[in-house]
Amino acid sequence: MSTGMKYYKDNPWLIGEDVFNIDWLGKVEAAMSLGNGYLGLRSVTEESYIGEQRDTFVSGTFNKVSENEVTELPNIPDLIGMEFRLNGKRLDTTKGLLTDYHRDLNMRTGELTRSFIWEYGGIKVQCNFKRFVSFSQKHLIGQLVEIKNLGQPVEVEFISGINGQVTNSGAQHFTEGDKVLTEGKYMQMMPYTTQSDIFLVLSTTHKIKKEEDIYHESKKRVEMGRRKIYNRYWINLDAGEEVEIEKISSIYTEIDKEIEGKTIAEVKNIALKELKKAEVTGYQKLFEKSAKDWEDNVWSVLPITIKSKNFKDQLAINFARYHLHAIAPAHDQRMNIAAKGLSGEGYKGHTFWDTEIFMLPYFTFTHPDIAKSLVTYRHLGLEGAHKKAEENGFEGAQFPWEAAWPDDGETTPVWGAADIVTGKQTKIWSGFIEQHITSDVAFGIKQYMDVTGDQKFAREKGFEVILDTAKFWASRLEWQEDKKRYEILEVIGPDEYKEHVDNNAYTNYTAYWNINLAIKLYEKLKENEQHIFWNLDKKLKLSQVYEQWIDKVDKIYLPKPTEKGVIPQDDSYLSKKVIDLTKYKQSPQVGTLFHDYNLEQVNEMQVTKQADVLLLLFLFEDLFSKEEKLVNWNYYEPKTVHDSSLSLSTHAILAADLDKLDLSYELFNKAMNIDMGENMLSSDDGIHAASLGGIWQMVVFGYGGVRCLDGKLRIEPHLPEAWSNLTFGIIWRGNPLIIEVNKKQVSVTNNGSSQISFEAFGSKYCVSVGTKKNINI
Amino acid sequence: MSTGMKYYKDNPWLIGEDVFNIDWLGKVEAAMSLGNGYLGLRSVTEESYIGEQRDTFVSGTFNKVSENEVTELPNIPDLIGMEFRLNGKRLDTTKGLLTDYHRDLNMRTGELTRSFIWEYGGIKVQCNFKRFVSFSQKHLIGQLVEIKNLGQPVEVEFISGINGQVTNSGAQHFTEGDKVLTEGKYMQMMPYTTQSDIFLVLSTTHKIKKEEDIYHESKKRVEMGRRKIYNRYWINLDAGEEVEIEKISSIYTEIDKEIEGKTIAEVKNIALKELKKAEVTGYQKLFEKSAKDWEDNVWSVLPITIKSKNFKDQLAINFARYHLHAIAPAHDQRMNIAAKGLSGEGYKGHTFWDTEIFMLPYFTFTHPDIAKSLVTYRHLGLEGAHKKAEENGFEGAQFPWEAAWPDDGETTPVWGAADIVTGKQTKIWSGFIEQHITSDVAFGIKQYMDVTGDQKFAREKGFEVILDTAKFWASRLEWQEDKKRYEILEVIGPDEYKEHVDNNAYTNYTAYWNINLAIKLYEKLKENEQHIFWNLDKKLKLSQVYEQWIDKVDKIYLPKPTEKGVIPQDDSYLSKKVIDLTKYKQSPQVGTLFHDYNLEQVNEMQVTKQADVLLLLFLFEDLFSKEEKLVNWNYYEPKTVHDSSLSLSTHAILAADLDKLDLSYELFNKAMNIDMGENMLSSDDGIHAASLGGIWQMVVFGYGGVRCLDGKLRIEPHLPEAWSNLTFGIIWRGNPLIIEVNKKQVSVTNNGSSQISFEAFGSKYCVSVGTKKNINI
Repeated sequence: MSTGMKYYKDNPWLIGEDVFNIDWLGKVEAAMSLGNGYLGLRSVTEESYIGEQRDTFVSGTFNKVSENEVTELPNIPDLIGMEFRLNGKRLDTTKGLLTDYHRDLNMRTGELTRSFIWEYGGIKVQCNFKRFVSFSQKHLIGQLVEIKNLGQPVEVEFISGINGQVTNSGAQHFTEGDKVLTEGKYMQMMPYTTQSDIFLVLSTTHKIKKEEDIYHESKKRVEMGRRKIYNRYWINLDAGEEVEIEKISSIYTEIDKEIEGKTIAEVKNIALKELKKAEVTGYQKLFEKSAKDWEDNVWSVLPITIKSKNFKDQLAINFARYHLHAIAPAHDQRMNIAAKGLSGEGYKGHTFWDTEIFMLPYFTFTHPDIAKSLVTYRHLGLEGAHKKAEENGFEGAQFPWEAAWPDDGETTPVWGAADIVTGKQTKIWSGFIEQHITSDVAFGIKQYMDVTGDQKFAREKGFEVILDTAKFWASRLEWQEDKKRYEILEVIGPDEYKEHVDNNAYTNYTAYWNINLAIKLYEKLKENEQHIFWNLDKKLKLSQVYEQWIDKVDKIYLPKPTEKGVIPQDDSYLSKKVIDLTKYKQSPQVGTLFHDYNLEQVNEMQVTKQADVLLLLFLFEDLFSKEEKLVNWNYYEPKTVHDSSLSLSTHAILAADLDKLDLSYELFNKAMNIDMGENMLSSDDGIHAASLGGIWQMVVFGYGGVRCLDGKLRIEPHLPEAWSNLTFGIIWRGNPLIIEVNKKQVSVTNNGSSQISFEAFGSKYCVSVGTKKNINI
Repeated sequence: MSTGMKYYKDNPWLIGEDVFNIDWLGKVEAAMSLGNGYLGLRSVTEESYIGEQRDTFVSGTFNKVSENEVTELPNIPDLIGMEFRLNGKRLDTTKGLLTDYHRDLNMRTGELTRSFIWEYGGIKVQCNFKRFVSFSQKHLIGQLVEIKNLGQPVEVEFISGINGQVTNSGAQHFTEGDKVLTEGKYMQMMPYTTQSDIFLVLSTTHKIKKEEDIYHESKKRVEMGRRKIYNRYWINLDAGEEVEIEKISSIYTEIDKEIEGKTIAEVKNIALKELKKAEVTGYQKLFEKSAKDWEDNVWSVLPITIKSKNFKDQLAINFARYHLHAIAPAHDQRMNIAAKGLSGEGYKGHTFWDTEIFMLPYFTFTHPDIAKSLVTYRHLGLEGAHKKAEENGFEGAQFPWEAAWPDDGETTPVWGAADIVTGKQTKIWSGFIEQHITSDVAFGIKQYMDVTGDQKFAREKGFEVILDTAKFWASRLEWQEDKKRYEILEVIGPDEYKEHVDNNAYTNYTAYWNINLAIKLYEKLKENEQHIFWNLDKKLKLSQVYEQWIDKVDKIYLPKPTEKGVIPQDDSYLSKKVIDLTKYKQSPQVGTLFHDYNLEQVNEMQVTKQADVLLLLFLFEDLFSKEEKLVNWNYYEPKTVHDSSLSLSTHAILAADLDKLDLSYELFNKAMNIDMGENMLSSDDGIHAASLGGIWQMVVFGYGGVRCLDGKLRIEPHLPEAWSNLTFGIIWRGNPLIIEVNKKQVSVTNNGSSQISFEAFGSKYCVSVGTKKNINI
C-alpha cells in the first residue's frame, strides 16, 4: 500500500492517488483542482465524505457577509455532488471492498478521472467518474459517470442537481434564489450575492445512456428543498449491464462581460439554450474541445522540457503551469490571481504581492496577454490605492496588502488565528503596515514593460502607476532631524514574523528604487513624450512632487552592511535573541514555531519567516556584490524557517546564483513538495499559487539563468547536477526565444521578427531572426 | 439484527436503538432530542456522519436571513461536536467491528446515553457517551465521555469546542462573533444574529479525569479558525486504562429575561463564572439535579399509567409528555411551542394552530402555569394580529397562520416545494387564506379560561382576545345579496388539499362560534363587570361592533347536512371526483399523492389531507348528534389520507366517541408511530409536536372521556380492549383530580381544595374535597 500522492515515471502529466484516504481529502481537492480562470472547482468526489471542502469559485464575484468581515470570493452552489445508492446502499468507498482504485488528474487535458471496483453487501460494480472544467467554454462543467454491474441485478438510485447549502466555512454569501425545473430535466437556480448583489445563473442537466438507449427515460422525480433542487433517478441494471450518466452544468454571473446589461431572466434563457446545446454535443466532444484549447493555448506555447534523473522535475513544472493557467482570470482585467487561486477558501480569493513578485514573471515572459491583464488590474486599482493612501494620511497610490475587486481598496482582515499565550485572536497588521506591496506593484509593472516592450500599456497605464506609487513613497518618508535622513518606521517587511519594525531593508530599498524610477521616468517623459507628460502632470501634479522626489531621494536611509557585511533586516533585528531552530526547520509542517511561542515572542528573536534581505539581493542583484550576497545568505538562511511558500524559490535561485547548485536543487525539491509532497494537509486551504510561480522562476531564472536587469536581457544558465538538458522559451519584446541548455552549452533560437541582444557570462550577444546562437558555458 | 427504534418491554422510559444506521440519523436526532424549553438539541453524535443535521435551537431567537425569507429559529453554533482519533484513526462507528452498541434516551431523567465496543485497525476501546440538557439550569448542557482501553496502548486525540460553521440548511444567521480562550480551557464565542441583532454567549470547557487524576493536565493546543474555537487534546492510555472527559457548556442570549439590560461583556463574565462553578460541580451532580427537576415538575405531577397488553402504550404517553416539556418555552411568555418543537428545522420554529387545538389542552388540564404562558403569548400577539388584519383590509385581530416573535405578524413563507407538473415552486396560500387560526386561538383561550377558571388572565387578556377576534370575523364576512346571507369565501380550511374554497364548514362554524361567544361575553361584562367592560370598550370600540355582531351573527351561512346527512366540507367538495386512495392510505410515507398529482389536480378530487369536518364534530360535539357524526365519519374518513400528523388523534377520539374502539385503538397506534414507528425518515425535520398533544388527547379525551363543554366538565371513559386500567389526573379550576378507569368503573378523587362537579353518562356528580367518587360504566 502506497501513501500520499501518486506520480508516474512514464507520464509527467498525471498526478493522482491509488489509495482513498479520507484524512487526505483536502490535498487531492486542491492539488487536483480544476479551473479555467473564470471558475475553479476543488476536486471533491461526487458523493460526500466527512472532512471534504466542497468549493466552487467564480473569479471576481466578491461579496461581504457582514460589515465586520472583509469581502471574499464566495463558495457558490455546488453542481458536482451526486449521491448514489445501489440496492438502497449508499455508495461510500470507505466501506466494503475497494479495488483497482485510481484517481488522477491529467494536467495536459484538464480531465479528472476516478475509477474503482466496489463490492459491498452483495453488490459488485465497476465505477468510472470523469470531469472537466471547459477551457474553451468558460461557463461549462462536464461530468461523466459509468457504472457497470459486475454482480447480481442492482437498482442504481441517484440524486443530483444543484446544492445551494454550501457556505464559506459557515458564512453564507447568497440569497435563496429562484429554482426552476424545465422539461423535467433542466434544473436552474438563480441566487444573488447578499451584499454585492451579483446574480448567478446555475444550470444543470443529466443525460442517461443505458446500453443502446442514448436518451434513456429512467424513472425520476424532482426534489426541491431549501437552497437545493435535485432530480432523483432510478435505473435497473441486470448483471453485466452498464449505465452512463452525463451531467452537464453551467455557471453565468451578472459580471460576465459577454452578458453585460442582460436581465437575470435573459441570462437564464441563454444558459438554458446553451445547456441544451451542450447536452446534444455530449461529454466526450465537449471535453475534446477543451483539451485542444489546453494544448493550443498553454502546452504548445513555449514548452518546457527537463531531462533530469528525477522524473518529478518535469512533473513539477507541468504542475505549476497547469495550475497557473487554471487560476489566472485572463478573461477579465478587473480580476487578478488569488493567493490560493480558485482552489480553496484560504486568503479569501484575495490578490497579494504574490502576483507581482512570484507569478507575474511567468506570464510576462511567456503569456504577455495574460500578464497585460494582470498589470491592468493594478491600474484599475488606483482608485482603491488612492482611497487607502488618503485614509492613512498619505498622497498618491498606496496599494492594498490584500486586493479584491479593483476599487475595493484594502481588504486584509483585521483578526487572525489564536495567540497561544493569551488565547485571544491575533491582530493582523499587514493591512496597516506591510507597505512594500506598493513598490512590488511598481516592480511588476516595470518588469512587464521592460520584457514586453508594451509601449501602449506603458503610456496609458504603466507610467502612471510608477509615478503615482512614487508619490505615495515620497509622502510616506519620515524625516529624522537628528540623523538628517528619511526613514520608514513602523512597518512589516516580507518577514512577517517581525511586526512594527523600523527601516526594513527591503522596504527602504524598494521605496528608494520606486522614487528613483519615477524621477528618471519624469525626466524622460518631459524630454521625449510631452503629450504623455502633460496628461500625467495634470492628473498627478507631477511638477510639484518632482521637486520633493529630488529633494528626498538621496536622503533616504538605505540600511548598510555591518562590518561583517550583514545587511540589517531592520533597525533591531541584529540585536535580538538567536534560538535553535532545528526542530522547526525540520518539521514537515509550517508554523510549528507557534506551538511553542506567540507572535510577540517570535518578534523578539532572530527568526525570519521567509526571504526578506535575501529577496532584496535577488530582485536587485545589481546593487550587491556576490560576496555580499554570500555573507548575507550565510547569515539569514539558517535563521529562516521558510514558513511562507514564498520563501524557498527565492532561496533556490539565489543559491544557484551563488554556485550552491546542490543546495539549490534541494530547495527546488522542497519547493515543489509544498503542494506535491508528502505532507497531506499542507494544501487543505488551497494550492500555493506564488509557489507555482516560484517553480517556474527556479527553472527559468534559477537554472535557465534568465534575468531582466534594467531593461536588458541576461541568460546565464547553470543546471543542477541531476539535469542533463533544459529547454524552455521566453518572449522578449514580442520575439519568442527558444533556449536549450545542457551542461556545456546554451543555445538561443530567435523565432521572432526582430533581432534581439542579450548578455551571457559577461559577454554580449545578438541573435538575428530565425537563427540560433550557441554559447559555451 | 433488529431494525428501527428499540423499545424495552420492562422499561416504559427508554427509547433507543441497538443498530447504528447512518440512513436513520434523522429519526434518532429528533425522536431522542433533548431540551428544556429554553434550548433544544437534536441528538447528533459527538463525531460527525454524512447526513446528520446538527441543530441547536434557543427559543425566541428569531432571525431573518434576508428580506425575501421569513424569520426563523436559527441553528446556533454547535457545542456538542467532539472528534476523536485513536492512534491517528478517526472514531467512526460505521467502520471496523462495533459490538454492544446501544443508544438510549431515558425520558424520565432526560439523559441520552451511547455505548459500544469499537475494534478497528488494532484498536479496541469501550466508549460510553452521556449527555443531558439541564432541566433545572436552563442554560446548561452536560456531556460525559468515557473511553476505556481494552487493547494495546492507544493515544486518544480529540478536538472539541464551539463550532459556528453550522447553518439552517445553508442559511447563516450569525455574525462571526468574538472568540476567546481563558486560562487555556474556557472557550467562548459571542456572535450576533444578523438581522434581529441578538447576541449569544456560548461557553464550553473540558475536564479530563485519567484514573485517579481528577484534573488531568493533558497535552493540549488551542485551534481558532473561522467561526470556530477548539482545543485539541492528547491523552495516552495504556492497556486497561480509562479516561473520562466532561464537557460542560452553556448558552446565554440577549433576550434572556434574567440578564436583561446587561452588556455582552457582562454576560460573558457571568457565563464564565457559572461555567467554572458547573465544572467544579461536575457532570454527575448537575445531571442528578436536572433529573430531579424532571421528576418534580413533570413526572410526579398527575402521573399517567396505562395497563395495557401493549407496553408501547405507556411508552407513547411518556414520549409525548417528555417532548412536550422539552419543547415548551414555559420560561418566557413571549415564546410559544413550534410545530417541530426544538428538534428540527421544519416549519422554522413557528407556532401554528397546533398549539391551541392540539398541545395547549395538555397544559391547560395538567400544567396551567405553562398553559397561561402559552395563551399570554397570543395576547402579546395582538399587535401582529392587528397588523395582519389591517394589511388585509379587515378589523380587529387576525392571527397569523404562522407566528414567531409575538409582534412579527404573519411569518408563513410564500413558496414551498416543487410542483411535479410544472417544475416550479408551489405558492403557499396558508399565510393569506387559512384563516381559521383566528377562531382556533379564541377556542384555546376559552378552553383555558373554562378549565382553569383563571379570572385574572380572563379579565386582563383573555376577554380581549375573544372580543378582538370576533371583530375580525365580523369584518371578514361577505354579504351575498342573492342568498341573503353572510359567507366566507376563498379560504383554506383544516384540509389544506383544498385551496381557495368557499364556506369551509369548519371555518364558518368556528367564526360563528367566535362572534356568538363575543356577544355573550359583551353582554355579561356590560352587566356584571363594568370596569372591565368600559376598559375594553374604550380599546376595541365594542359598542359599535356589538351592533354589527347582533346584526350579522344569525345570517352567517353554516353549511347544513345533505339529505344523506353529510355536512359539505365546502361549497364544491361534494361535487368533485372521487378517486381510489388505497395506495396512498397504505403507504408508510405521507404525501405520496404528490408523486402522482400536483396540488392543482388534488384540489379537484374528494381527497382530504386531515380531519376537517370531523374536527368540527369533535371540537363542537354538542352541535351534532351521534348519528350525524357517524354519517360524516363514514363519508370523510375513507377520503382522508392523514397526510398531516394532526389528523389521526382527532379521528381516534371521534372513533372512541362513536364506540368504534378497535378502530380508534388502531388509529392510536398509527398516531404514536408518527414519531415512534418504523418509518425511519418521518421525523427528519423534527418531531411532530401537535401529534404529541394528540397522544395525550387520545388517552385523556378519547379513552379517559374527559371533555370541557361550555365550561362544564364531563368524564365518560371507555377503554380500548387492550387496556385494563388507565389512571391519570387533571386540574379542574385549581383542583387536582385523579381519575382511575377500568372496564367497569371510573373513580374520581378530588385532591383539591374545593368541591367539584361533573357529568358522566348523562348523570351529574359532585366530589367533595379529599373524597373519591366511583361510577360504574
